[in-house]
Amino acid sequence: MSDKLSKFKEMIGEVFDLNRAAAVLSWDQQVNMPPGGAEARGQQLATLGKIAQEKFTSDEMGSLLEELKKEYTDPETDEGAMVRVAARDYEKAKRVPPEFVAEQAMASAKAVEAWVEAKGKSDFSIFRPHLEKNLELIKKYVSFFPPADHPYDVLLDDYEPGLPTAEVREIFGNLRPKQVALIKAIGEAKQVKSDFLKKSFNEKKVWDFGETVIRKFGYDFRRGRQDKAPHPFETTFSVDDVRITNRFEKNSPLATLFSAMHECGHALYELGGNPAYERTPLASGTSLAVHESQSRMWENLVGRSLPFWEHFYPELKKAFPSQLNGVNVKSFYKAINKVEPSLIRVNADEATYNLHIMLRLEIEIGMVEGSIAVKDLPEIWNARMRDYLGVTPPNDAQGVLQDIHWSYGSIGYFSTYALGNIISAQLWERINKEIKNLEEQIRKGQFVELREWLRKNIHQYGHKYDPRDLVRKVTGNDIDSAAYIRYLTEKYGEIYGL
Amino acid sequence: MSDKLSKFKEMIGEVFDLNRAAAVLSWDQQVNMPPGGAEARGQQLATLGKIAQEKFTSDEMGSLLEELKKEYTDPETDEGAMVRVAARDYEKAKRVPPEFVAEQAMASAKAVEAWVEAKGKSDFSIFRPHLEKNLELIKKYVSFFPPADHPYDVLLDDYEPGLPTAEVREIFGNLRPKQVALIKAIGEAKQVKSDFLKKSFNEKKVWDFGETVIRKFGYDFRRGRQDKAPHPFETTFSVDDVRITNRFEKNSPLATLFSAMHECGHALYELGGNPAYERTPLASGTSLAVHESQSRMWENLVGRSLPFWEHFYPELKKAFPSQLNGVNVKSFYKAINKVEPSLIRVNADEATYNLHIMLRLEIEIGMVEGSIAVKDLPEIWNARMRDYLGVTPPNDAQGVLQDIHWSYGSIGYFSTYALGNIISAQLWERINKEIKNLEEQIRKGQFVELREWLRKNIHQYGHKYDPRDLVRKVTGNDIDSAAYIRYLTEKYGEIYGL
Repeated sequence: MSDKLSKFKEMIGEVFDLNRAAAVLSWDQQVNMPPGGAEARGQQLATLGKIAQEKFTSDEMGSLLEELKKEYTDPETDEGAMVRVAARDYEKAKRVPPEFVAEQAMASAKAVEAWVEAKGKSDFSIFRPHLEKNLELIKKYVSFFPPADHPYDVLLDDYEPGLPTAEVREIFGNLRPKQVALIKAIGEAKQVKSDFLKKSFNEKKVWDFGETVIRKFGYDFRRGRQDKAPHPFETTFSVDDVRITNRFEKNSPLATLFSAMHECGHALYELGGNPAYERTPLASGTSLAVHESQSRMWENLVGRSLPFWEHFYPELKKAFPSQLNGVNVKSFYKAINKVEPSLIRVNADEATYNLHIMLRLEIEIGMVEGSIAVKDLPEIWNARMRDYLGVTPPNDAQGVLQDIHWSYGSIGYFSTYALGNIISAQLWERINKEIKNLEEQIRKGQFVELREWLRKNIHQYGHKYDPRDLVRKVTGNDIDSAAYIRYLTEKYGEIYGL
Repeated sequence: MSDKLSKFKEMIGEVFDLNRAAAVLSWDQQVNMPPGGAEARGQQLATLGKIAQEKFTSDEMGSLLEELKKEYTDPETDEGAMVRVAARDYEKAKRVPPEFVAEQAMASAKAVEAWVEAKGKSDFSIFRPHLEKNLELIKKYVSFFPPADHPYDVLLDDYEPGLPTAEVREIFGNLRPKQVALIKAIGEAKQVKSDFLKKSFNEKKVWDFGETVIRKFGYDFRRGRQDKAPHPFETTFSVDDVRITNRFEKNSPLATLFSAMHECGHALYELGGNPAYERTPLASGTSLAVHESQSRMWENLVGRSLPFWEHFYPELKKAFPSQLNGVNVKSFYKAINKVEPSLIRVNADEATYNLHIMLRLEIEIGMVEGSIAVKDLPEIWNARMRDYLGVTPPNDAQGVLQDIHWSYGSIGYFSTYALGNIISAQLWERINKEIKNLEEQIRKGQFVELREWLRKNIHQYGHKYDPRDLVRKVTGNDIDSAAYIRYLTEKYGEIYGL
């Protein structure tokens, strides 16, 4: 290894450690921190962010990267990929002043606290000034970059490198009429019965059942843990310490199971990373959409499939004999896949889910363009929910306050969820070509071969390949919604007899 | 505020944030972290420590301090105290190379993991190489400083600024014969009955009772929390986020109560700090001995007093009716104060506690001098336990592995525990002069006036005064064991009818 490369690795390793330390502080903030801790925590996160930014954007780093770019030109080598990713991130980061990063971290820490309170009290006015501040900072952030076709491009690029707003709108534009037609057909078909899912389920039993499932998926509790938090998420402290959070909501008690599988999917991506990439720019998943393809695959393509429940249903029924009395596996499978326009994105069925995303994308674009004011959000949210899904949130907690993302100042994030769905179906078609008896394995509760396939073809590469290159490498195709539509049509065709 | 002072505050604030972030990571390591996380966590702590050290010992900081020392000369002002404390710490820190700090943090993170495993398996050999490494680093640390009267002086000074080894040995030398005579007299007196304390107590009920007590003491769960960890400790993330940990041991089930009170005493010190001192060198307690005077006061002078139990015993008895059947408050009071040479420091009674400390002090001095080898520690520990206390540990978990301190690389720490006992009695005499009906208040479960006295006279000053100056300011005397001996003699004289 050249002296320059090892100096680069040392420097980037420190930045990495600072960011991972910040992840621990953020996790603690949501899982453990008493309310008194909020202000200082914001300051601490601001300082860590500022120092990481200063170190990453130092002139020394800039010169090193310039020289390394000449030396390591082959993107198929780890070193070449490392330098390419770091140089791209450097050029972006260099545009953002350290004081701005600190200010944003501080504002977001306060906004998260406010969001928790606002959601608890279902009172948007508590959150509003914080979201206004976050949006003001987001606009300032965009202004640091050269004008793009659309200001939103700058934001989207941070989550999905190289994917312009126009292309996402086009992918969504193709998908929407087909999803809407499907939902319409389902609406006119004979409805499935799911009232038993609203019965009272014991929280601890549901939680434990979720852990049983994710252990089978391969989540290793010696390298992770699951805690309670206001919002389920996955966070990575190292390739051997990848944690997930979850919640329990009385109104949709089994949602906890699917959240566990979802976050486990993210966690397996991180846990399957190449240990040699630790403390380098190649560690962690390559983009949010690819990450989401993993979580949605485990949650939906596996966890809401009939073979899966043919294996797990007897055990679930043993845990909840009275709630599931008289419900056979086929009825249960139909119930958990019931299509029903609803309020909460994370609990939405697969057929309507993407409409929640499309709503958010349009609102975010409006906020960034300035055509939507924060103060009008609850009203706009509720109006669009009626337009898109035909339902009206009874309060802000179940409406505009449901997601934590905007409190972090994360705008540009949401569309990656729908892209993740699309990619998950593309991968699934490929996997089923390579693992002929996958369905049979799932029916037996065997997930090793699936997980290993994902590890070998996706997880181990970390950040080495850009998302679209990775999808092309693995599936032979660009990101394309055809597989997803085939998947939905077949699945719901069978459930609803279309 | 001068530009220089505000630049200084900004720079020192970042160092402060880095250290507090490291405290969060350490807490997580002991409370939550899955075993897989250990290696990366060591690296993260090493990086945070290294950057904090680099920032604190920068030339810019050095020049600033030089100039500020000329400008702020009055130690009675906050600014003067801030500059004095920072300059002293700077001069010490400047001697220690950043790479060394990182190496020590890395070694200690691994050693903590090894200690947890070694203690669990009661196998010193698992911990031995880590302690050897820690000791090697400690010796290297001492070598960075000018030769002192004794190499141990350098270590002690980090915990108790300005107190030389010889003086501590003298204080202990004065105290020891009196404590030994008292223990002897007690040994010859009629023994108290305490077998009921060894009965089975429900863990959750004990834990909850402890929380009831510390809430009454004034521990505010909106500004802190109590978690389970292998070793009870207090840690500060900000003046409004001060956490404690605790454990439950079946063999001494009520020890959990006294640990809660003890750690609460530390926490109240931190929670009572002046918010204006946050992110400055004046935040937090002034020394470990003064800190320990607070924890031991709440644990012993309050928590093991008869008035305290006159208030709480009926409630305890309600929680544990069968275990405490036929035991009246006086018998309970005697039982929890039973003097009995025993194995575990943190569970030791007040009459024998200091002997545990004296044993550790002599062993540490031996290790640092080189007259004691790590490999011989279990044997030496057990031999001295027989000499000092007449008991022999049945295994290393209850012997040399009982305390976490050496795994942190903390050598020089233990004697501050005994000094804390001594100071607590000095303060107690003073408080009882100023709060005439304190005993009556405690009997009613009222702790506000005591806590406020401590806040006003001790807590609010943070690091402003050096420990001996603070003790002199508050009590009019130097650190002196006379009050402690008076306290022990009166208390045990009454319990044992001496």
